[in-house]
Amino acid sequence: MPLKNKTTGKLISFEGSEGSGKSTQIARLAKHLQLLGREVVTTREPGGTEIGEQIRNIIVHNSKGDEMCAETELLLFTAARAQVVREVIAPALTRGAVVLSDRFLDSTTVYQGIARNLASDPVNLINQFAVGNVMPDLTVIIDVPTEIGLQRIRQRASDLPDRMERENIDFYNKVREGYLLLAKSMPQRFLVIDGSQSEDAVEKATWTGLQKLLV
Amino acid sequence: MPLKNKTTGKLISFEGSEGSGKSTQIARLAKHLQLLGREVVTTREPGGTEIGEQIRNIIVHNSKGDEMCAETELLLFTAARAQVVREVIAPALTRGAVVLSDRFLDSTTVYQGIARNLASDPVNLINQFAVGNVMPDLTVIIDVPTEIGLQRIRQRASDLPDRMERENIDFYNKVREGYLLLAKSMPQRFLVIDGSQSEDAVEKATWTGLQKLLV
Repeated sequence: MPLKNKTTGKLISFEGSEGSGKSTQIARLAKHLQLLGREVVTTREPGGTEIGEQIRNIIVHNSKGDEMCAETELLLFTAARAQVVREVIAPALTRGAVVLSDRFLDSTTVYQGIARNLASDPVNLINQFAVGNVMPDLTVIIDVPTEIGLQRIRQRASDLPDRMERENIDFYNKVREGYLLLAKSMPQRFLVIDGSQSEDAVEKATWTGLQKLLV
Repeated sequence: MPLKNKTTGKLISFEGSEGSGKSTQIARLAKHLQLLGREVVTTREPGGTEIGEQIRNIIVHNSKGDEMCAETELLLFTAARAQVVREVIAPALTRGAVVLSDRFLDSTTVYQGIARNLASDPVNLINQFAVGNVMPDLTVIIDVPTEIGLQRIRQRASDLPDRMERENIDFYNKVREGYLLLAKSMPQRFLVIDGSQSEDAVEKATWTGLQKLLV
């Protein structure tokens, strides 16, 4: 069954390490688009549905985080994604909305595949199984040097991704390199933005890059 | 990384529709084996670990059960399985224990694959990804006609698998046929027991079938 019957609906995913400023930029872009009269649906991963938020709780607040194996982590992320795709994203695209997703399948490729060293064939197949034919029209990578990203999340007061917080700097370096590698291999789908700039500058660069797709 | 270094450790999974009497038979077999001096580890799916029981809660007590898509269901079951394999089953097999699992990967093949019509290639690959090289040495299918199984679970007072309960009789007929089909295709791994007999008779048939493997 095809999930997607896109007319003018567009799916834009935002990717990047922790602290890259994705959610700020998503909020700004959503405002812009709404001013232009577009229906905007924002969602986040893992989560975005009632079931997905329950899955998020297991992943993020797992008290013995280091005991969750990489395979379980990947299957939980993709379970939440399968649900949000069918319950939220596909219907929104059918209505013609612009869907802005804070993370999508590239997070799995990079975090569980590249950074945790799971074999790429099953990772790609499971990703595909979860999303069906709902692929991002564009993926914005907000790229920041690992040290800057970590510094930013340490300054945040609440809502820290507890489990992810415990990873070391090597892990986040692999994540960053993984994203840049992906972008290089599929330049038509990815837009890499320098996230170490001011929020205003990132917003401007994102808008410039997206305009052709959206207006 | 190989998960399994089996010496005398054995993994025996029990499969069958709801109400087939799996848990009763697992308890009886465990007692037998313990009397013979074997270490026995019993586990159930989804569950068997702290993370797995949290996943079980999402699946079983999901208040809007009919809104969980089949893909999400499959990924949640396999996430719980990936965890129990690495945290419980593989270490137990290495110690030489007999592991009795109430459901294992064949449940996914049959429930999500055959009964919910998900394509068999991704189902098999995701199953494989979740279990690594930890396959059952033997799988006991306790086969009961659908009507008898459903009658039995309706008589139970508590711990009903809420979500599964809502399925209709066609679904459970597909499940039953799916198990019998699997057993036919891999006769060396499966032992099909007539579960409409008395509990004592099922116990005896199970013991007879397993003796060669275990004693």
